Amino acid sequence: MPAAAPAPPAADPEIVGREALRGVILKIAGEIVAAEGLPAVQARRLAAEGGCSVGTLYNIFGDRDGLILAINRETMTALSVPLDAARKASVKGHLEARLMALATAYMTFALENRNRWLAVFEFRLPDDAALPADFVAERARLLGLLVETIGSDVPDAAQRQTAARALFGAAHGILHLAVNNRLSDFDRADLERDLQFIVKAAAAGMRKMG
Amino acid sequence: MPAAAPAPPAADPEIVGREALRGVILKIAGEIVAAEGLPAVQARRLAAEGGCSVGTLYNIFGDRDGLILAINRETMTALSVPLDAARKASVKGHLEARLMALATAYMTFALENRNRWLAVFEFRLPDDAALPADFVAERARLLGLLVETIGSDVPDAAQRQTAARALFGAAHGILHLAVNNRLSDFDRADLERDLQFIVKAAAAGMRKMG
Repeated sequence: MPAAAPAPPAADPEIVGREALRGVILKIAGEIVAAEGLPAVQARRLAAEGGCSVGTLYNIFGDRDGLILAINRETMTALSVPLDAARKASVKGHLEARLMALATAYMTFALENRNRWLAVFEFRLPDDAALPADFVAERARLLGLLVETIGSDVPDAAQRQTAARALFGAAHGILHLAVNNRLSDFDRADLERDLQFIVKAAAAGMRKMG
Repeated sequence: MPAAAPAPPAADPEIVGREALRGVILKIAGEIVAAEGLPAVQARRLAAEGGCSVGTLYNIFGDRDGLILAINRETMTALSVPLDAARKASVKGHLEARLMALATAYMTFALENRNRWLAVFEFRLPDDAALPADFVAERARLLGLLVETIGSDVPDAAQRQTAARALFGAAHGILHLAVNNRLSDFDRADLERDLQFIVKAAAAGMRKMG
């Protein structure tokens, strides 16, 4: 029998408390965004509901932009769950079926979490500000799910990346315009038809790359 | 020789003045949006720069939403000029070339008029408010340019409408994400590659409909 592993170092209670508070604040903020949209996220309100001071809030998140990026990162992580499930469930299908499974999961999440999903795309950092590394990594992981879904149907890695970016932008644009009633009043049947058209076309386009 | 046409009725100077003022305000507002974005559009500032009262401003445009919709309609009309030129210039090309000409004209307008173009898509009316009829008509006219460009390559009118909506949403989404640095830092070569991929795929998809 191997010797018992050494006991982990006692956790610093201040760090543990800070991490717990971060989670509490993000949960409250996520609910506010879901119910009322991004403009309703205000530091004073969050501090009051989270039971901390505004100073502590800014100490954890930096500033309002940092807080919103953290909320949006949570939303991206939540989105990755149904996307990854759709990817796994469709892994034995042909390319078009796999892409359509992902597009449908994306659409369903966006419609069921409209405000949180819109917040991810409508929030803009000032032009000179850089995105935090963990946000960039989460975004790359999400696009990676699509790249992985395309898989060996597009053998060249650079072409696979282009195809994934283009299809994501395409499906996203169709969904975004539909949710915001940009081309007409929202019509789910129209939306599904538009998505299907572009996924079918993109899948055929990708097979030609392969 | 035919008899001289009757003289036109004398224009009502109040209506003429109001129309002229409307044009002046829209021009100033368009310049503010271009330079500083939509949040910088404020009634008091516009009234001061246009030489009228805030009351007169609201009398012409209804409220701030009405003013912004009027600004956005102007932008859509401005966008229709290069789109229609691209449509006419490419009318003898094959489907993919015609669609790419339109997509390129759309991209060029969006990149050169970033803030005005973003304003068209980022402004949201309250959920219970209806868009004015002239706005809806201008939007339909713009989508009509794409429908017309597809033309007889998709003989069925309903399918042609789906294809036009889907491709517009797709190209728009790719451009919108790129301009807002959503998938990576802005890279024009990446953007053009992504657009080309989706236009090529969509053209092939449309030919299959035909």
